Amino acid sequence: MVMGNAPPLNPPVRTLMGPGPSDVHPRVLQAMSKGTIGHLDPYYLQVMDRMQQMLRDLFRTQNRMTLAISATGSAGMEATVVNLVEPGDPVLVCVNGVFGMRMADVATRAGAVVTQIQRPWGQVFTADEMHQAIERVKPKVVGIVMAETSTGAWQPIEEIARVVHQTDALLLVDAVTALGGIPVEVDAWQVDAIYAGTQKCLSCPPGLAPVSFSDRALEVIFQRKTKVQSWYLDIHLLANYWGTDRVYHHTAPINMTYGLYEALRVIFDEGLEACFARHVQNHRALRAGLEALGIGYAAQEGHQLPMLNAVWIPDGVDDAGTRSALLQRFGIEIGAGLGDFKGKVWRIGLMGYASRAANVLFFLSALEQLLAEQGHRFQHGSSVAAANAVYAASA
Amino acid sequence: MVMGNAPPLNPPVRTLMGPGPSDVHPRVLQAMSKGTIGHLDPYYLQVMDRMQQMLRDLFRTQNRMTLAISATGSAGMEATVVNLVEPGDPVLVCVNGVFGMRMADVATRAGAVVTQIQRPWGQVFTADEMHQAIERVKPKVVGIVMAETSTGAWQPIEEIARVVHQTDALLLVDAVTALGGIPVEVDAWQVDAIYAGTQKCLSCPPGLAPVSFSDRALEVIFQRKTKVQSWYLDIHLLANYWGTDRVYHHTAPINMTYGLYEALRVIFDEGLEACFARHVQNHRALRAGLEALGIGYAAQEGHQLPMLNAVWIPDGVDDAGTRSALLQRFGIEIGAGLGDFKGKVWRIGLMGYASRAANVLFFLSALEQLLAEQGHRFQHGSSVAAANAVYAASA
Repeated sequence: MVMGNAPPLNPPVRTLMGPGPSDVHPRVLQAMSKGTIGHLDPYYLQVMDRMQQMLRDLFRTQNRMTLAISATGSAGMEATVVNLVEPGDPVLVCVNGVFGMRMADVATRAGAVVTQIQRPWGQVFTADEMHQAIERVKPKVVGIVMAETSTGAWQPIEEIARVVHQTDALLLVDAVTALGGIPVEVDAWQVDAIYAGTQKCLSCPPGLAPVSFSDRALEVIFQRKTKVQSWYLDIHLLANYWGTDRVYHHTAPINMTYGLYEALRVIFDEGLEACFARHVQNHRALRAGLEALGIGYAAQEGHQLPMLNAVWIPDGVDDAGTRSALLQRFGIEIGAGLGDFKGKVWRIGLMGYASRAANVLFFLSALEQLLAEQGHRFQHGSSVAAANAVYAASA
Repeated sequence: MVMGNAPPLNPPVRTLMGPGPSDVHPRVLQAMSKGTIGHLDPYYLQVMDRMQQMLRDLFRTQNRMTLAISATGSAGMEATVVNLVEPGDPVLVCVNGVFGMRMADVATRAGAVVTQIQRPWGQVFTADEMHQAIERVKPKVVGIVMAETSTGAWQPIEEIARVVHQTDALLLVDAVTALGGIPVEVDAWQVDAIYAGTQKCLSCPPGLAPVSFSDRALEVIFQRKTKVQSWYLDIHLLANYWGTDRVYHHTAPINMTYGLYEALRVIFDEGLEACFARHVQNHRALRAGLEALGIGYAAQEGHQLPMLNAVWIPDGVDDAGTRSALLQRFGIEIGAGLGDFKGKVWRIGLMGYASRAANVLFFLSALEQLLAEQGHRFQHGSSVAAANAVYAASA
């Protein structure tokens, strides 16, 4: 390649209904392009304060140590783990999908002695089995994924939190796909550390990881015997920048912060309850449409996430070909299956701004067409009509 | 605060002449707000490939492992260190400012046995003293900062690289402030690992860290006995996403990538040589203006960075008050001194898009006014005239 001949940037218009990034709200895109200012500018410090407060409102917590890590959601996982864990600490990780596996890997790299408990993909953990595992392992930290993006399973946290807190253990929750899509109650459930990403239900591009630490978690962190292995993610140092001292640590990603700030404003303009209700309604409409196509869910009944619909690919349907046609002919992105679910499952996201009737109806009409072209026959009539019936019933 | 009442985002217009972030090019801001697409979208994969190639052209290298870490420049430091270093490895770090100190801290957290060699702030290291230190320490990795943002000192790399490569040691270079402002020659100098940031001379907001690893460095990394302590920054995993396999690792920060892609196009539209010459010319003009005000440089003569002008605050001048007035009355941000230079030095950035005559002349006129208001008398006439004379001479 000759130096510098890269063509102008001209990304195609997509409808993002995969596991993330999801459709970004137009107000957020606009915010991203506002003029950059300094990371110690008085106005930027105000933006940080207000963003922190909005994040607390969204996490439903009073935790002062609530902030956005300057990297994507996976770095939020790493940030919580490396601050909580010292070499040799026993850690219990619940694995029923890719992100539980990842948490176990991250904790092992931090020097933890990791014990995994497993459930088949798509199923969730019960408080009873957690109780037994905790008795056996006596972990310092229990890690669990609330919304498993690889399976679409919705893990209830409240009861498990009670079991964890019968001991001294700290509860670490992955809320990457949960936050902004379903209720997350950090204080009511006594979650000790939690992380999320911007690119799922917050309608914001990937690039920041909201995190929150309880005062109890902070106490443990501030009494560590060893330094946090990551300088970039060390809460001791981040606290001095996000706190009142404003000590320079790293240069904050100003325009990403603009994006998240506006994304949070969008959520509170709608209202949290309305936002969650919208996610449920569009999920119901999608589900009705998929049922008309004879397509069922991979996650356990009663534990299906409204914003991440992992569904079985119908027999005889070409996985990659169908996804590719959705993208090339309709501009719709959905997600492939990961790991155990590779080739078996599609992941259809209805997250944040992507959770709207336009997307549900557009997707169903496109999918129905592509399946019909592959000779698929439908027992139950039009998927679009089925979805529209759900919207009409609540109109 | 009542939930969700954060006011609309309305950042003030600033002229960013501090140590970064620096003024962002309008084309880059526009690129940041283009529609988000998926991180495995065929178009996005093209963007990544082309961006990688532009980064290679900018680093002046053929290194296949040239990419952007999904976090800010400091994470670029951490990414290079944690991949190169295994616990117990001897590492030599050259410290003559804040960023050398930081590298020593990061390496220590990675388990390295760190030896520091020191030079007074503002001075640079010679190949001779490096040679002696390397003989003594026999390091696996030698780390050095090319453009010390805390002192404005320009560390020559070429001769030092030769000395390092008389042994088996790997040379790690911090080019956060250097890249795009002064020539960086990764292949010609045989640099083994290098990192930068987007928010300095690339005219892009903070949020990504370009890095490059030589094949020799990769060989060492791929023969590690221990796992890289950071999952997020592990080159083994990143290589599978940035390489031809495109294995999902984390969700790439799409819109930040748009920004960097366009920033690199802006640089190559101008041309590398022209870009470096512009940085030198605006530096000369600024320097002439500052001399008229009786203000001198903190960095060693002959080793002053064109894009980061660290200058002594004149006797009797109110440091914080003057910087605050520059910001409040003129919208100009310059940087305070850090560490040893706190209260003694201002750091005036002329980086990337901020390196232009408009900024130099605006800043000098503002500073001259504020100093005059504090009773400062000028021996050498108008600073603006002195700067303009430099521009006129080369017109």
